[in-house]
Parts: sequence; structure tokens; C-alpha cells
Amino acid sequence: MSACVFGHPFLGPLLGDEEIASYFTAAADIAAMVDFELALAAAQQEAGLVSQDDVAAIRSRTAAYAPDLAALGQATARDGVVVPGLLAELRAGLGEDAGKALHLGATSQDAIDASLAMRMQGVSLALDRRLAVLCDGFTRWNLADGDRPVMAHTRMQAAKETRFSRKIAAWTDPLLRCRLRREEIAPRAFALRIGGAVGDRRGFGDAAEAVAAGVATRLGLHPAPASLHCERDGIAELAGWFSLITGALGKFGQDAALSLQSEVGELELSGGGGSSAMPHKNNPVGAEILVALARFNATLVSGMHQALVHENERSGAAWTLEWMILPQMAMAAGAATRTAQELLGKLSLAGG
Amino acid sequence: MSACVFGHPFLGPLLGDEEIASYFTAAADIAAMVDFELALAAAQQEAGLVSQDDVAAIRSRTAAYAPDLAALGQATARDGVVVPGLLAELRAGLGEDAGKALHLGATSQDAIDASLAMRMQGVSLALDRRLAVLCDGFTRWNLADGDRPVMAHTRMQAAKETRFSRKIAAWTDPLLRCRLRREEIAPRAFALRIGGAVGDRRGFGDAAEAVAAGVATRLGLHPAPASLHCERDGIAELAGWFSLITGALGKFGQDAALSLQSEVGELELSGGGGSSAMPHKNNPVGAEILVALARFNATLVSGMHQALVHENERSGAAWTLEWMILPQMAMAAGAATRTAQELLGKLSLAGG
Amino acid sequence: MSACVFGHPFLGPLLGDEEIASYFTAAADIAAMVDFELALAAAQQEAGLVSQDDVAAIRSRTAAYAPDLAALGQATARDGVVVPGLLAELRAGLGEDAGKALHLGATSQDAIDASLAMRMQGVSLALDRRLAVLCDGFTRWNLADGDRPVMAHTRMQAAKETRFSRKIAAWTDPLLRCRLRREEIAPRAFALRIGGAVGDRRGFGDAAEAVAAGVATRLGLHPAPASLHCERDGIAELAGWFSLITGALGKFGQDAALSLQSEVGELELSGGGGSSAMPHKNNPVGAEILVALARFNATLVSGMHQALVHENERSGAAWTLEWMILPQMAMAAGAATRTAQELLGKLSLAGG
Amino acid sequence: MSACVFGHPFLGPLLGDEEIASYFTAAADIAAMVDFELALAAAQQEAGLVSQDDVAAIRSRTAAYAPDLAALGQATARDGVVVPGLLAELRAGLGEDAGKALHLGATSQDAIDASLAMRMQGVSLALDRRLAVLCDGFTRWNLADGDRPVMAHTRMQAAKETRFSRKIAAWTDPLLRCRLRREEIAPRAFALRIGGAVGDRRGFGDAAEAVAAGVATRLGLHPAPASLHCERDGIAELAGWFSLITGALGKFGQDAALSLQSEVGELELSGGGGSSAMPHKNNPVGAEILVALARFNATLVSGMHQALVHENERSGAAWTLEWMILPQMAMAAGAATRTAQELLGKLSLAGG
Repeated sequence: MSACVFGHPFLGPLLGDEEIASYFTAAADIAAMVDFELALAAAQQEAGLVSQDDVAAIRSRTAAYAPDLAALGQATARDGVVVPGLLAELRAGLGEDAGKALHLGATSQDAIDASLAMRMQGVSLALDRRLAVLCDGFTRWNLADGDRPVMAHTRMQAAKETRFSRKIAAWTDPLLRCRLRREEIAPRAFALRIGGAVGDRRGFGDAAEAVAAGVATRLGLHPAPASLHCERDGIAELAGWFSLITGALGKFGQDAALSLQSEVGELELSGGGGSSAMPHKNNPVGAEILVALARFNATLVSGMHQALVHENERSGAAWTLEWMILPQMAMAAGAATRTAQELLGKLSLAGG
Repeated sequence: MSACVFGHPFLGPLLGDEEIASYFTAAADIAAMVDFELALAAAQQEAGLVSQDDVAAIRSRTAAYAPDLAALGQATARDGVVVPGLLAELRAGLGEDAGKALHLGATSQDAIDASLAMRMQGVSLALDRRLAVLCDGFTRWNLADGDRPVMAHTRMQAAKETRFSRKIAAWTDPLLRCRLRREEIAPRAFALRIGGAVGDRRGFGDAAEAVAAGVATRLGLHPAPASLHCERDGIAELAGWFSLITGALGKFGQDAALSLQSEVGELELSGGGGSSAMPHKNNPVGAEILVALARFNATLVSGMHQALVHENERSGAAWTLEWMILPQMAMAAGAATRTAQELLGKLSLAGG
Repeated sequence: MSACVFGHPFLGPLLGDEEIASYFTAAADIAAMVDFELALAAAQQEAGLVSQDDVAAIRSRTAAYAPDLAALGQATARDGVVVPGLLAELRAGLGEDAGKALHLGATSQDAIDASLAMRMQGVSLALDRRLAVLCDGFTRWNLADGDRPVMAHTRMQAAKETRFSRKIAAWTDPLLRCRLRREEIAPRAFALRIGGAVGDRRGFGDAAEAVAAGVATRLGLHPAPASLHCERDGIAELAGWFSLITGALGKFGQDAALSLQSEVGELELSGGGGSSAMPHKNNPVGAEILVALARFNATLVSGMHQALVHENERSGAAWTLEWMILPQMAMAAGAATRTAQELLGKLSLAGG
Repeated sequence: MSACVFGHPFLGPLLGDEEIASYFTAAADIAAMVDFELALAAAQQEAGLVSQDDVAAIRSRTAAYAPDLAALGQATARDGVVVPGLLAELRAGLGEDAGKALHLGATSQDAIDASLAMRMQGVSLALDRRLAVLCDGFTRWNLADGDRPVMAHTRMQAAKETRFSRKIAAWTDPLLRCRLRREEIAPRAFALRIGGAVGDRRGFGDAAEAVAAGVATRLGLHPAPASLHCERDGIAELAGWFSLITGALGKFGQDAALSLQSEVGELELSGGGGSSAMPHKNNPVGAEILVALARFNATLVSGMHQALVHENERSGAAWTLEWMILPQMAMAAGAATRTAQELLGKLSLAGG
């Protein structure tokens, strides 16, 4: 199905990103939720709530588990979340005791949010690596051509000559700051949200904090208080981060497209896009795509902020809205970093 | 690939829509573009620009054509549009003359926009049919229960008793108006945008208007002037229409969720969603989904209005932004009408 | 207070619009609400619900009424709406009977929405007149220069020569369609929403439809069913209309800015903006402002669609959101039409 | 003029904020720009670029300066920025030498962005103080009532009993995190953007870094590289911060409105809003306003991210878009913190 460009058969290679997409397959999501359930059982054993045998049974079961996606789809359509269906499948291969030990004291949101945080953390690290590569590429360009004169433009008019390094700085510095921002938002964006039925961890009894800490450690997530369940600011902030990345690269794309205009010709592009009507054209496709991705995420970030108005202990409406938007913002950030790398490799300063 | 919920293996049954999705497969898009190319050749033959033999050859070729999606993907990643790659594949099975007759005087945008208009018109008719079904369902409910008293709520407080028909009217009337709106926007939203390389139809010579009219007739689209190429108001308007549908149904969902609250109990729900932690719950999943879909489209409509700032004769950035957003808005409208029908079947007025 | 550019002491002349602003003064709003109250009393007298003496008293009182804005502000801060405070002031100058006859069977929303519809209808007519002037200006330019050759640009690259008339058509046609759209949306956007306490007009008894019709006639608004109270689609649609206007003019501005680039020089601008650092510059300020206004309304239209999720019989949250957004969208449309007229007067085709 | 609610004669007391508004008067803006010009001259004197006499003359002139707002408005309408007009007024009271020393090597954007950063820093500190007060208020409530049982609701259904402290935590913790975020974003959001004509500080010669540092120190802003001129990520991030504040308080408002429903009655409200039709009502106006403000900023944040696509060395379009949006987001955050404090003072846990 292809209403979405990212996995579209022929638009995907233009607008998608295979590495980032690997975090958003159903398989990756289920694997992460299963990891959560196993980490939960192990942490509860450590706290004396679950027996060693039950954990061993859960470990075997999860290792062997192959999801029935059609059945999970039907269950999700009914329940609004995949977890009840997933647990039913897992429990079908467990004895009664281990079945009770599975997901003990937890709720659907615990598993889904943990999976999201794990995968988003992975995405953020992949993007961070790409930002480093991009900054490196811009820096090399600066070393090579930074001192050369170019015309500066303000308000769409030629203004004064400046050095090319000024332009490169404007493309590089926001990316460096995005790397720093990742560190700042990590404890909020990649936190373990585990709260049980209504976000008070009551189902874990006196061991609640120990269980939560044990799960967080096992999953590589930041520990957080129970109430984070319905506090979505760290997630909206992550959405903002994705959009700051695409926005910075959108400016790079816009500047490149303006500099590549036939009449300006300050930059040169090798291997641009062809036209079905005008064979002489060398279209700055990558530059335009960067602008489109920036405007796409700038549009979507609004929805993630709307989802901050999260009713009571859990809002199905606000939570589902996040599912519809956040993965796409990550994909757009992935596509933008990938496209920017490709574009950077094709650009040169004219007259060089 | 599943960053998008609509075709997601297990979120799709909750948030997707198979019928509407059928308009957004790569196959449907290619089929429509091929239809355009054939209609163009036929209209040009009628105008004396293309020979009967060439049209016959194109007809045979397109009938037999099976796209190589991987190759089209590579071409799209390079060109920013699929059409040059598609034409190369089609021409590989045509002689030189027919190859020249194919796409004669046209440009990529002609094919892509025609395909979009054809499929969007189909989507709009499918949605219109569903709106009719929904209005019918609400009307039946009104006949059955419209005179019964319910509590009206203003500003989140019980206000005064009213009749249930007042609530039903508020859910039905905007849908009726959306049906009317479809008629109004059709000539603008489902217009044939055919302009050739730069939107002046110059490639069709003196026969330009005849060719355009011939293509429009063959494709069942509304005729339009050449300059419509870069005038995207009809498309933004269509986006608004999708969002008016989801918004109206979002109000229905919000009202249903409020009426279904445990403490209010004015409506009753059969077969709600289950919880992994609280087996007693009967979650109003469909009602919440309607709210999420409304907020999703209310978010996305902004991007379609941003795309109105379409640079010059064709903006790759603004156009690509449309591709990223409009199909999803159609899918959300599909999912909302489907979900609303299901929800309507499960709701009843309490104490009935 | 100047957090808003439209009435800002020095940004206002750049981004505001005096004529449109006149519809959004507190005085204009109060005058329209008072008109509503008087029309209501008169219509109720016609229906036999209110005595002739009471209507006469109300007429005298409203004619003489001078609002105490500070007191109305305090009342609004408490009640969330101005009407209870306004009625208290009006009633202070009425006898007990006439005081009861005032606002009989009505609710705050009736007065506020009627005032909004009256003023928005006025705004729409002012904008329509300006669109006519703009279309006229573009048409004259087309007569003068439409046949002259200009370079067409696609995907930010010089493409092929075309005639200037093609560009002018792309700026004119969406405005013509906006004029048509105004006619289409008028019955929904400029409808009298009168429903009484909970939107069922029960307070008017058997005379409800007659009273509603009488008020609509007196105020020049379109009649509508009671339930329209909480159906906000006509208002969201009006927001879309404002944004289609600014979007069309934003494209004009973007095209003008691109054509005015120093290196392109296809258009020439007389009397552009000066720079504090570079006296040689002739900045295309008006063109940039048109882009900014388009993106502003494209941003805001999203919030008006969010407000479609209007809870129950009246949502204070969704309704207040409309107040925060819709007038600004009208102002931006006003500023855009005003700026476009000025810009049009300063532009000429180079080499003319 | 009142198209904007914040300074509206009767909506202002409901939706505005006097303290935050004081940062957005024309007078405050001009005063800050004048401070910038004086700081620049002083820093340039320190660097040996400007004479002591000229600085003394500038100091006298700026101390005595009273802006002619009408003239500044005319100049802004022409130039798109106020600075050329402001400089003309200042220079009218200076000798030729001091007139040349004024604004030496600087550009309009330097003055406008410095003023914005100074005032936004002040706004952020005012909001930070209010967040502290709110956290304190919530903490007191938690000490008093945190252990009392309340019903938790998930997906709009009663779920399980929990303690009231869980709800309070969900309202408090995001505010605490917003205080931390302010510290993180300060060096990016409250940076001195000074770049001269095209953002390379060339006009300051070899003393460029010393001058920039001297100005930053004098104005209490964070130093930053020249290229920050057209890198707007710190400003978009600040917009995100405003929206995270309103979003967190929007959730508080939404939860309060749900808990205050007549049928739920978990919270009690003293002094709610009155209705013109239903005197018995006690409307949760403040709670609804918080939701409206959250959705308003969630809408606007999108436009600030669109403005990241800032063309070349300075984009009049993107920059103007910021002016239209950012002050309003600050105002909404101000109104939300003010309203939340008032609401907190009126709420109590039922049955207390």
C-alpha cells in the first residue's frame, strides 16, 4: 500500500530511507515489545515478583515467537492497540503460571512506548552519525573553497560579496547544534515510560521503582517517573528535533536551488534530474526534495504539539495521533540526511 | 515498510482503508498515467498531429505493459518524477515513430497530475457514497430515537435537556454539506491539468485546445486552461474537503466518547476495545480514532496550503510536498468514514 | 498592545489593513451584537413573543448605549464570553419587562456568532471587491504585455520561452475562482447560527423557525438550522477561503521575487525598500510580504480545522480557538490584497 | 485595532497578559534597538573604531530620543523593516561624524534580532518565574491532597482508583522540565545575532569578534558566530518551548475540564463563568482557555518551523513570518501561565 511516499515502490527511492525504515517495520516493533516483556519479567524476578522458571519459559517462548500479523491486525482493529493480541499469541505458547507472569502489572502502553523509545533512540543515533558525516563533508568543502568570494544575497537581491565559508557555516552550524540537542533531549525523549494500568506502577507493589529501573537498564533507556505515561513533552520535543534537522537541511536545499539557478550559476550540479519534455535540463532534484521534506516536517510538528493535550491517564486519540505522525517525521529526517549527503557530493562552486 | 499507519501490517486494519488504498497503489498510479498517454495520443490523432498507426502501436504497447518497479524507482530517485523512466520503458517496446508520438508535446506533470485527478475523483466518489450511507444511518437513528430526551452539555457542563435529534443533526448536517461541496469543487479539483513543458500547451500547436478537450473527455476529467499547471488552489481545496469530512466525523467521535464516559453513560457501546491490564474495560476505540483522524488531517491541511506558494511554472518542492500529504489525507477520510460506519453500528442510546 | 503585527504602531502600515481592521474593533463587534439583540426582539415581536413597548424600549436603549469596555473586559475574563456583561449593561438602562424581553430565549453564542457572520460577510465583500480590482489590473497588464516573450522556469531552472500572458494567467485565475468560491460558501459561512441555550431553539417555542428567519432577514444573513450552533464547517471553510486568497497572492509574490532577482531581471520594480547597510538595494518588500502572509494563513488554517472537533453542544475551547485565529486570517487576506495592488502598481516587464 | 485577542479591549482580560505584553510594545522594541545601537558604538569605541566623542553624542541623542511612530510606520511600509527610518530619526539629532559612527558596519537585522533576543530573554525569565510559582502551587496541593484516592481514566473510561498525586505529577513534571529546557536553549535562543550587511561582520574589520563580544556583554546576550544571522534554529526552538509550556498547561486544563464535568465531579471549581441563558451554570472557563491556548501554539509552531527555510543571507519572507508568529506564541504562554495560576486557586478536590 502506497499512500505514503516513504515505502512507495517508485517514490520510495526518491523520498524514503532504508536504514531508518528498518526501525519502523512491524517486525522491529514487535521485536522491541517482546524485548520489553522479557526485560520486565527479568526485572521482576530480580525483585522477587516472578519465578526463575517463569522467566525461563518466557525467554524460550519469546525467542521462538513468530507473530501472526493478520491476527494481530484484527486484534488491533478491535482494541485500538496491538498488545492484547500480542499477549494472547505469546501466552498461547506458555503455561498458565508463566502466562500470568508475562506482562505482570504492566499495560499496553508500557510495551508500546518502550518499543517506541528504543527504536527512536536507534533512529536518533543513526541520524546523529549522518549529521557528523554531513558536518565533515561541509568542513572539507570549507577547507577547499571557503575563502573564495561569492555574492551574498539578502531579500532575494544581490547584496555584497562575501566568502563562501559564510554560506557553509550557515549550513553546518545548525547541524552541529542538532547533535548537541540530541544529548539534551535524550533523557526525556528516550525515557522508559512504564506505569502500569493507570500510570502509578501500583501493580508492581513496593518493588515498583526497582522494577522500572531494572527494565530501563536492560533496554538501554533512561529511567523516568511513573507519571511520564501521560506526559508527552519529551516526545513532542523529539518531533521538534526531527524538524530542526529537516529545516536546517531545507535551508541548504533552498540556498542550493537558488545558487543553481540558470541565471545565477554560483553552484554547479553534476547529475541532476532529467525532464520528459526538455532534455537539456539538469534539475536540482535533491535540493528541491530537501525543501519539501523541511516543509513536510514543519507541517507535522504541529500535530505532535496538538497531542500534548493528552486526556487523563491515557488518551487513545492523542496517542494514536502520535503514531500517525512521529514515524513519518523520523523518516523525513532520514531522507533529508541521505539526500543532503548525495547533494553535497554533486555540488561544486562554479569557476573552481 | 511501515512508517505510515495506513498500510501497516497491524495498524492498517485499525487506521487504514482498503478501498481508498486501492487508488494509491503504484499500479493504479501507473495505469492512470498510461491511460493519460493513450488518451493523449488518441486526442492528437483526432487533431491530426499523430498517425493512426502510431496510436495503434501505443495502444498495443500500453495494453501489454508491465512496469519494472525497481527500474522506475531508480529513475525517480534521479529525475524527481517517474515519467521519464516510465516513458523509457514504454518506448523500449515501440518503434521510433510511435516512440516520438508517445507523450508528444506533453511533460511529466501532465501525466502525473492527470493520474492524480483521475484517482482523486474516484476517491471522492467512494467517499461521497459512504457519506450517503452515513447520513442514511444517522437518519434511521433519528427516526428511531430522535424524540428521546438527552442532556445537552455546553462548555463541558450539563446544561439543559434537549432531544437526541439535535445531536444527530449536528453529526449529519456537515456530512450532507460535504456532499454538496464535492459538486462545487469538482471542476477545480478534478480538472485536467495539461500544459506541456512550461504550461502553455505550445507543443500542441494550434490544436492545443482541441487536444486538451479530447484528453479531458477521454479521462472523464473537467477541462481547464493551460495555466492551471501551477495553480494549485483546486488541489488545496480538495485537501480542505478531506479535512472537513474528518473534522465532522471527529466531532461525532468526540461527542460519542464524551457520551460513553462511565460517569455519563448516555450512549452505550457494544464491542469496544479490550485492555491488556483491565479486562473490565470497553474502550471507545472507534470514537477516539475519529478524533485522531480529524486532528491528523487538520494538521496536514496546512502543508497543502503551504504548497500554494508554487514557484514559477513548476516547483519541484511544492509539488513533491503535495505528493507527501494529499494521499494521506484521502486515506484518513477513508478510514474515518469506514470507522464512523462501524461505530454507528455499535452505538445505542442508553435506556432504550 | 502590539504582540500582533496587524495593529502594531510601525509594523501595522507594512502588514495591516485599515479597512479590514475596521470590522474587528471592539466597537464594531459590540455594535453587531447589539444589532442582533434588537433584530431578535423585533422578530419576536412579530411572532407575538415580545410586546411592542419592550421592543421600543430596547431600540431606544441600544441606540443610546455606550459600552464600558473595562467592565466588559472584567466580565469576559470571568465568563469566557462578553455577552453576560453586555446584557447587564444594556439591562441597567431598561425596565424589568424590557430587560426580560432582551435576549429572550437566546444565548451568548447566538449574539457572538451572529456578529461574527455579519462582519465576516462584510470582510468577504471587501475582499471580493479587491479581487475584482486585482483581476482588472492583471488583465490590463496582459493586454499591454501578454504577448511578449519571457523565460519560463521549471524546477528552479530556465526551461523554455513562453509568453508573459501565461504567467499573468497563473496569478489571475485563482483570484477569479476565489470570487466564485465566495458565492458558494456564503450560505454556510455567513449563516445565522441561532440556537438558544443548547442549540435547539426551544426557548422560542413554536415560533422558533419564524424567529430565526426574522432575525436572519433583518441582519442580512443566510438562514440555517438550529443545530448549526456546534457545526463549524462553514467557518473552517471560510478560513480556507482566506488562505486560498493569500496562497494565490503568495505565488504572485514568490514569482515576482524570483523574477526581480538581480541576476534574472525579468521584472522591474519601482520604489522598493531601502537597506540600512546597502543603499544601492531596491528590496522587493511587497513580494516578500505576500509570501509571508501566505505562509501565515497556511499555518493558521490548521487551527481552524482543529476547531472542528467541537465538543457537545458548545465547546468553549474550540470556540475560543476560532476567535484567536479567524480574524487574523481575514486581516492577512486584507493585507495581501492591499499589498498585491501596491506591488502590481510598481512592477513592469523589463525591456518594455 | 483588535483582530488579535491579546490586546483586545474585552477579550484581552480573558486571553492576554499585561506583563508579557509589556515586552511587545513598540516602545519596548525601539528602546531595545536603541540600546543595541548604543552598545554597538561603545563596543566599537573600545575596539578603536569609533571616537569617544561620537559615543558620547550617540548616548545623549538616544537618551533624549522620542520616536515619531507615524513616520516610522511609513518608513517600515516602504523598507519592510523599521531600522532605516529609526536611524534617520536618530541621525537627525546627530552631527555628521556621530551620524556615521551610529550603526557603523551594522545592518537592520542586527538591531531587530538583538531587540528580539533581549525581549525574549526577558519573557523567558518571566515565564520561568511563573512556572516556579505553578510548580510550588501544585506541590502544596500534593502535600495536602496527594494521598487521597481518585478514579483514573484511560481512553475516556473509568479505569482504576489511583492517588491524586499521580495526576498532580502529570501536571507538574512537564513544567519542571520546561524550566530545565530554558537553560538548555538559552545560548541558542538568546544569542546576539550580529553579522552586518550580509552576515560576515566584514564591516567591523579585524575587530569583528571583539565588537560582537562587546555588544553581547553589554546587552546580556549570549555570543554567537556571525553566520547565525540566517540560522533560525534557536528561534524555532524557542517557539517549541513556548508551545511545550502551553501544551503542558493545556493538558492540565483538559484534565480539569473532564474532572469538573457535572457527571464526574472529581474536582470542584469556585467562581467559574456565568452563562447568559443558564444562570445555574459554573463554566470551567479557565480550563477551556488553557486548551485553546495549547492548540493555538500547537498551530503556530508549524509556521516557525516553516521559517527555517530562510533563503540565502537574509529572507524577508521568512523573517517577517517570524515577526507575525513568535510574539503571539510568547503571549499565549503568558496567558496560559497566568490562567493556570488563577485556575489552580479556584480548584479543589471534591469531598475534601
